[in-house]
Amino acid sequence: MKSEVALPQPYLLFLGDTTEPGYAKTAFGLRDWAGERCVGEYVIDGATVSTGLAPLTPEEAAARGAKALVIGVANSGGFIPPTWWPALVRAMDAGLDIVSGMHARLREIDVLRDAAQRLGRRLIDVREPPSNIPIATGKRRSGKRLLTLGTDCALGKKYTALALTRAFHSRGVDATFRATGQTGILIAGGGIPMDAVVADFAAGAAEMLSPDAAQDHWDVIEGQGSLFHPAYAGVSLALLHGSQPDVIVVCHEPGRERVLGHPGYALPSIQDTIDLALRLGSRTNPDIRCAGVSLNTARLDDAAAQRVIAHESQRLGLPVADPVRGGETFDALVDACLS
Amino acid sequence: MKSEVALPQPYLLFLGDTTEPGYAKTAFGLRDWAGERCVGEYVIDGATVSTGLAPLTPEEAAARGAKALVIGVANSGGFIPPTWWPALVRAMDAGLDIVSGMHARLREIDVLRDAAQRLGRRLIDVREPPSNIPIATGKRRSGKRLLTLGTDCALGKKYTALALTRAFHSRGVDATFRATGQTGILIAGGGIPMDAVVADFAAGAAEMLSPDAAQDHWDVIEGQGSLFHPAYAGVSLALLHGSQPDVIVVCHEPGRERVLGHPGYALPSIQDTIDLALRLGSRTNPDIRCAGVSLNTARLDDAAAQRVIAHESQRLGLPVADPVRGGETFDALVDACLS
Repeated sequence: MKSEVALPQPYLLFLGDTTEPGYAKTAFGLRDWAGERCVGEYVIDGATVSTGLAPLTPEEAAARGAKALVIGVANSGGFIPPTWWPALVRAMDAGLDIVSGMHARLREIDVLRDAAQRLGRRLIDVREPPSNIPIATGKRRSGKRLLTLGTDCALGKKYTALALTRAFHSRGVDATFRATGQTGILIAGGGIPMDAVVADFAAGAAEMLSPDAAQDHWDVIEGQGSLFHPAYAGVSLALLHGSQPDVIVVCHEPGRERVLGHPGYALPSIQDTIDLALRLGSRTNPDIRCAGVSLNTARLDDAAAQRVIAHESQRLGLPVADPVRGGETFDALVDACLS
Repeated sequence: MKSEVALPQPYLLFLGDTTEPGYAKTAFGLRDWAGERCVGEYVIDGATVSTGLAPLTPEEAAARGAKALVIGVANSGGFIPPTWWPALVRAMDAGLDIVSGMHARLREIDVLRDAAQRLGRRLIDVREPPSNIPIATGKRRSGKRLLTLGTDCALGKKYTALALTRAFHSRGVDATFRATGQTGILIAGGGIPMDAVVADFAAGAAEMLSPDAAQDHWDVIEGQGSLFHPAYAGVSLALLHGSQPDVIVVCHEPGRERVLGHPGYALPSIQDTIDLALRLGSRTNPDIRCAGVSLNTARLDDAAAQRVIAHESQRLGLPVADPVRGGETFDALVDACLS
């Protein structure tokens, strides 16, 4: 199944036997950004993590209208452990399709494939890119585009894009969140998993993801990786070139000093990230500009966060905000994006 | 079959019914760089292109020791036309495996798959990357590395890497040509087709391609694309980051002003290409330096070529040479690489 096809909704969120909240990022993201399309959560013995949504069995979820069970947790190996299989089969028995954003493919597990076939359910892997991605043309497209970029992975690029999309909507601006990773695709109900696209087609995938649109329409595109990342910079550059953003917003976590998982690599500065992104991005959109910076201040208390935001805004001469905290600084960032 | 596995050699070069020399690039490359491992060429009715090697039937080639027929031509669609199928089956009948670097997969053609199975021959697609590519670590590796980079595609990056490897050998330097495209892989008898690697693993593929080596050993790595290419810059950046080159050589064709196939894009200057490559490459190897420039002067007569080479060398303050023409300027470029 191709990820650009609409996913079956609403969802039942599956949390497995997870005890590590960090592994349930997908479930939390769905609760926060697609809560109206989540009927509840489903856990198996041993789980200590909860989204706070109603605990439901697959049968109860189906009775409340759920169309699919979404695997809302990851583990470090990206695989689907045998302890989860009976729960997934039970969900199919109850009438639900299974949706996964994990690296492991659902249909490669015999017991799931057999159950799906027997019951007529779908096994949907959102990490599978569309099969018809073209080579990028580099041709300018109509409509406006915004791309979130990071100083690193996993510090708020998806969240920032979602928050900006929501803020655009609240101002009456026609905007579409464009997902490039599995959680974003589950939230949006479509998108392209950039990390799974063959390298030669990565920029083409980004072009496909945000097609020609009305002049006043905004595509708000979820960034991936970082232009300074020793493993993923190529993906980030392809996404930047193919997205042709008019506006970038750079995302950063104050206090993070090393690249996640690559302790030999210092994090680039915000200013270096802006400079490099504008230099590289101007290749496919000479009008590219940086509207401001999104800070992930989750580890700071409110006073410390406001101090960092004010200090960085002064230092960089740009709007700076934490979209989670919102407020006037975030309004100013939204203004700068749309100005 | 994985492309890191040694290919069966020597080869019989298959030219099909080709009338366009530009489509026989692979065959010419094999003749020039692996001539001692090519027993001859094989054409079918209608062909007007020849490599100048001995015309042989598959049976004659097998009698002279050939182990595989290599498809040495491409066509614009990258497919294997039905007019070629009887010749390929005949080669298998004569005892040869079939090796292809085309986009289309040999085993997806029923008549070839059936013949291979019946006769116990192998169908080898060198565009298939290894299945065990890791995520890049960014860790420095032992040994020396040189990467060729271009202002565009198709202007001599592979040729330059091959010529430098040959020159290194002639000076007694231990060096290995590392292939990143199908023709290079056929020549080297191994390598990784960078364009077919999934984007998240592209830098990891480059790390895998040039592993830890002796301190005085040089890997001479074939570049791909261009950091300024609207479709392929991501691949180029991943290859740059993963290769961690100590030395880069920038390749350019004087007179080319627009990106091939993307007439809306001006070619970057040599200086901009050097600057960007050093800036981006220093992320994974702070010691990176540019040894000089390789010019493809095939369209110029000798006097004009020497003038351009001298002018560019003076202007850039770097060794500049055309490896095809060789001579003192090329010797100076080789000196600068090894210095």
